[in-house]
Amino acid sequence: MVASMRTAVLRRVGEIVLEERPVPEPGPGEVLVRVAAVGVCGSDVHYYEHGRIGDFVVEAPLVLGHEPSGEVVALGEGVTRVGRGTRVSIEPGRPDFTCAQCLAGRYNLCPRMEFFATPPVDGALAEYVVVHEAFAHPVPDSLDDDRAALLEPLSVGVWAARKGGVGPGSRVLVNGAGPIGLVAVQVAVAAGAAKVVVADVNAHRLEVAARLGATATVDVSQSKLDGLEPEVLLECSGHPAATRAALEVLAPAGRAVLVGSGSADLALPLGSLQRREIELTATFRYANTWPTAIALAASGRVDLDALVTGHYGLADTEAALTAPGRDRTAIKSVIRPGD
Amino acid sequence: MVASMRTAVLRRVGEIVLEERPVPEPGPGEVLVRVAAVGVCGSDVHYYEHGRIGDFVVEAPLVLGHEPSGEVVALGEGVTRVGRGTRVSIEPGRPDFTCAQCLAGRYNLCPRMEFFATPPVDGALAEYVVVHEAFAHPVPDSLDDDRAALLEPLSVGVWAARKGGVGPGSRVLVNGAGPIGLVAVQVAVAAGAAKVVVADVNAHRLEVAARLGATATVDVSQSKLDGLEPEVLLECSGHPAATRAALEVLAPAGRAVLVGSGSADLALPLGSLQRREIELTATFRYANTWPTAIALAASGRVDLDALVTGHYGLADTEAALTAPGRDRTAIKSVIRPGD
Amino acid sequence: MVASMRTAVLRRVGEIVLEERPVPEPGPGEVLVRVAAVGVCGSDVHYYEHGRIGDFVVEAPLVLGHEPSGEVVALGEGVTRVGRGTRVSIEPGRPDFTCAQCLAGRYNLCPRMEFFATPPVDGALAEYVVVHEAFAHPVPDSLDDDRAALLEPLSVGVWAARKGGVGPGSRVLVNGAGPIGLVAVQVAVAAGAAKVVVADVNAHRLEVAARLGATATVDVSQSKLDGLEPEVLLECSGHPAATRAALEVLAPAGRAVLVGSGSADLALPLGSLQRREIELTATFRYANTWPTAIALAASGRVDLDALVTGHYGLADTEAALTAPGRDRTAIKSVIRPGD
Amino acid sequence: MVASMRTAVLRRVGEIVLEERPVPEPGPGEVLVRVAAVGVCGSDVHYYEHGRIGDFVVEAPLVLGHEPSGEVVALGEGVTRVGRGTRVSIEPGRPDFTCAQCLAGRYNLCPRMEFFATPPVDGALAEYVVVHEAFAHPVPDSLDDDRAALLEPLSVGVWAARKGGVGPGSRVLVNGAGPIGLVAVQVAVAAGAAKVVVADVNAHRLEVAARLGATATVDVSQSKLDGLEPEVLLECSGHPAATRAALEVLAPAGRAVLVGSGSADLALPLGSLQRREIELTATFRYANTWPTAIALAASGRVDLDALVTGHYGLADTEAALTAPGRDRTAIKSVIRPGD
Repeated sequence: MVASMRTAVLRRVGEIVLEERPVPEPGPGEVLVRVAAVGVCGSDVHYYEHGRIGDFVVEAPLVLGHEPSGEVVALGEGVTRVGRGTRVSIEPGRPDFTCAQCLAGRYNLCPRMEFFATPPVDGALAEYVVVHEAFAHPVPDSLDDDRAALLEPLSVGVWAARKGGVGPGSRVLVNGAGPIGLVAVQVAVAAGAAKVVVADVNAHRLEVAARLGATATVDVSQSKLDGLEPEVLLECSGHPAATRAALEVLAPAGRAVLVGSGSADLALPLGSLQRREIELTATFRYANTWPTAIALAASGRVDLDALVTGHYGLADTEAALTAPGRDRTAIKSVIRPGD
Repeated sequence: MVASMRTAVLRRVGEIVLEERPVPEPGPGEVLVRVAAVGVCGSDVHYYEHGRIGDFVVEAPLVLGHEPSGEVVALGEGVTRVGRGTRVSIEPGRPDFTCAQCLAGRYNLCPRMEFFATPPVDGALAEYVVVHEAFAHPVPDSLDDDRAALLEPLSVGVWAARKGGVGPGSRVLVNGAGPIGLVAVQVAVAAGAAKVVVADVNAHRLEVAARLGATATVDVSQSKLDGLEPEVLLECSGHPAATRAALEVLAPAGRAVLVGSGSADLALPLGSLQRREIELTATFRYANTWPTAIALAASGRVDLDALVTGHYGLADTEAALTAPGRDRTAIKSVIRPGD
Repeated sequence: MVASMRTAVLRRVGEIVLEERPVPEPGPGEVLVRVAAVGVCGSDVHYYEHGRIGDFVVEAPLVLGHEPSGEVVALGEGVTRVGRGTRVSIEPGRPDFTCAQCLAGRYNLCPRMEFFATPPVDGALAEYVVVHEAFAHPVPDSLDDDRAALLEPLSVGVWAARKGGVGPGSRVLVNGAGPIGLVAVQVAVAAGAAKVVVADVNAHRLEVAARLGATATVDVSQSKLDGLEPEVLLECSGHPAATRAALEVLAPAGRAVLVGSGSADLALPLGSLQRREIELTATFRYANTWPTAIALAASGRVDLDALVTGHYGLADTEAALTAPGRDRTAIKSVIRPGD
Repeated sequence: MVASMRTAVLRRVGEIVLEERPVPEPGPGEVLVRVAAVGVCGSDVHYYEHGRIGDFVVEAPLVLGHEPSGEVVALGEGVTRVGRGTRVSIEPGRPDFTCAQCLAGRYNLCPRMEFFATPPVDGALAEYVVVHEAFAHPVPDSLDDDRAALLEPLSVGVWAARKGGVGPGSRVLVNGAGPIGLVAVQVAVAAGAAKVVVADVNAHRLEVAARLGATATVDVSQSKLDGLEPEVLLECSGHPAATRAALEVLAPAGRAVLVGSGSADLALPLGSLQRREIELTATFRYANTWPTAIALAASGRVDLDALVTGHYGLADTEAALTAPGRDRTAIKSVIRPGD
């Protein structure tokens, strides 16, 4: 076994450097994974550009990346569920498994969660990572390394649709056609939604949304959301005015799932929400979504390839991070640490 | 307006006769519908052959048929939601709308429900029927008369899947590949189920199930249900031994929806259900399913044409009723009272 | 039967006059009730003082009052559930019973709801009112006229607790100790909540809350909500800053029920809600709450008498409306139209 | 620290002997508890008398007892939640915490659960036991050792009421007034149930039930369950005929929670369940119930002392086990290993 590995480290705002670090060792119940692919998320870009997201502040060098796939290459003590050579999609966190939130099935809310690429916990832009076997999800051959990596953003969409109660016949509005909006659309369609309308201001992304199954698209820089009466809003834009406009068109008893982040305060029209008894849920990551995400992607109901608009080596991490800012047709970069 | 109409009346067990009866008049809130198509259900056959289903006993001449579609031809006082000429799928019942069950959203459990073709309430094997406007659901052109009629059995499948919580990634076992099993399969697939296994003893019906999206089929006259671990059982066979066998393979926390009827007593393995905390729900008709059924059929996610294996005129009602008994490839007869 | 009756009519902002009007006649399914007691609600006061609540504007003379009890004195055609002489608590509205919202069990969201004392629908400050028999709830002798009237505000509390999922062991924060807060406290206690903390700025009302079962009270003009980690927030103050402060202390996966009205916009801390996956529900009146409210009040678990701080005749309606504004210890006025 | 301890061991059917065994050592995350009190459960009696419960067979000497309380006396590596000297109620099991069932919040269904006193896992009839810190629940001083021990059966009642959705205004039937029935009654009352009817054939236990809050009792050896229409059945008798009779009286949309065990097969009236859309849930132990149980007992809403009808030392284990068989007024024995 090699003793050291390359990692891409965020040294300070706007500066990523390659560093040689020791390969970590898997503890009891953990496995070592050789990383094959890592999707780049908007939060990675945000840490790179701003050094913080809300209360999470980068105060020491940080390895970014929390959408990894790879192959198990070593097993810690007592591991039984995966073997060496197993191709896996990594659920990028480590809850304590035994607190009240974990025991209640809400491990995403574990106060001791150590989540990849969230200060001060390093992420997956490295040749190897260690993860608990429970979070190293074996994938079938139909899911290549990219797809296995992108089960992470797909999980965000699965969680949103689940929280929103999207099901057969649902009328759904997806706000925002970024990577999360584009998986949310697909999950809603896969869940049998009758109408899946997507709103954004980026015409290219709306085209992609339509190709991925949206039954209608609205360029909200041009048109209003008139005439819609969605039962579910999957808010993936994080834009306060857009969120508010979408909330106003929800049907009575409608459910809004606030996935998009970024706005400090969200001003809600209380009386209007009350008259319709709107339910709002805010989401934080996901829990118990990988089996569903694997099933949706492996059966072809969700097309993850459509999200990938660029591949990069570890040495090109900055290019991967800045791609969406440079090119309005870019959706998601994938970094292959082994290249 | 014509004053009389033809009806097919069950006089006694095994005897259907054509009768001329007055065309009914729609009361306040009701509409008169010219019946275009009526699906034949197993319960119609059962009344024809046995004169009763459990406590519901045919004690006077009865018009069968509760899966009708047609066109609105006259409006009662105060009707606002449909107009003359509207093509509709009829939800075949009349709850009182104001009892505790109705007010709680469970109108299917209304103790004063007057349900089509359930003694002593007449059904739809007639040229005209009256129905409350709330239960005359307008259908788009993509749903022809047959499809509009078969939204009723589709509703049974929608209700079963809803009660079972079928959603993206679900592993589902459908017991029985009769008309209800075949719609249940399709609703489960439309809801994003990862696996939809269908069990029956009729090889032809299993082939149809596979064509309609089942990911696997099991001929339980040949094989056991080994290796399955479904999360949801949609029990559409009504066969006690098959129900029990299916319950035994459910995953921990699995949900069983008992749709199929016919068995008097169902002997359940208590300890085995407890160790897995299985939840069982028994279903009775449906509530609030038409919008979903319309969406699923209109979008092509559910193929109702595949169920229809014969068309008949009102005068051939007995042939329509006896078709499935004569021919193992027959699935569902449709009667067109206007022919 | 007498032909005319006295009513208290809001002519314009700040002016209530007594008017003689014809006694209404009950239509099919309806009953005529001789009104015994009517609780005065903050919304009555608001219409009196401002002539509007949000989009509901008083544009013609309006009878206020939507918390009535009384005795059935005449039956419309087909009424079977109550008889003449039955003492009833009136659920003050009339949905259409057959729209999609009604059929789904959400009749409070019926777009054709005619709700008492909401422009342009007259209320109950009259000697007689007509109501559908389904909404004339018989009460046992243990519930006198005042208590029967106050089942309406109790229903608001029942609905809030139900939406919030308050149950055995729950930690609950009730924001606001007005009439609704004071019933919410009692319902939470009756539901087995382990902690029921009440926050207000009115020391007298906090004392009443403590007497009615609150396990702790916080005068938020003096202290912060530190140290609390409620699972459920029943927001009954309608005060934006207080709402926000309460939302910030909710436990992960906490649920907030927004009952209090009055604020135009509610600025919510999006990121903070997301990190805890807080669920918010806004409420509008109630549905299917009377049986529960009757059970809670009849068994003595909820003390409605504690809310009543003054009785008035119809001629003293203005005094009844202005009592809480004049006296900080006033909680709820009751008007007895027959006096 | 002492090196050995006394245990009461089931050698074979009908034979308990005292054995000296090494005091166990707490591993990482575990604590050593000096056992203060252990409630005796019907399952302990069953293993003693029959050597098996269903598929769980006693094939080697087994320490019984799974309702323990005590004091933490030593900490394993990394323990942070409890300290030495903390008085605790022990949740008597050890799931793997990381399987799909655990991660979904259903650790009671963990396939690798090691549950106290379930072959081949030893129980708590010993001077010391080891337990994971997550399952060593600190108790307030208001809960003495007996009460802390009996939080285990109380948890069974909490779980049953939670699964049954008992809440304010519920009409509940509790079948069986043994220890579990008697806690179920109290939890239902604490949850705000309007009616809590208890059925049994033991007049003494029915009296206790009435004292503990049942609103009515039915001696089913004398009377039928006529006139009841409960919404929830908490089936704690395990008696097939009694279960069936109770299911028949459930209201439409009623929920039955099958807690009682013992019967091999349960013959259910399928058609009758379907017409009312009854939901059945079978329960297995509990999950996430201790905080609720602690709150209910500490606040005095649940009286656990009423269940205790005898105290025994470890040497008198057989007398403790056989007490309920000898005396119809015996409810629950408590063993104090330290005496």
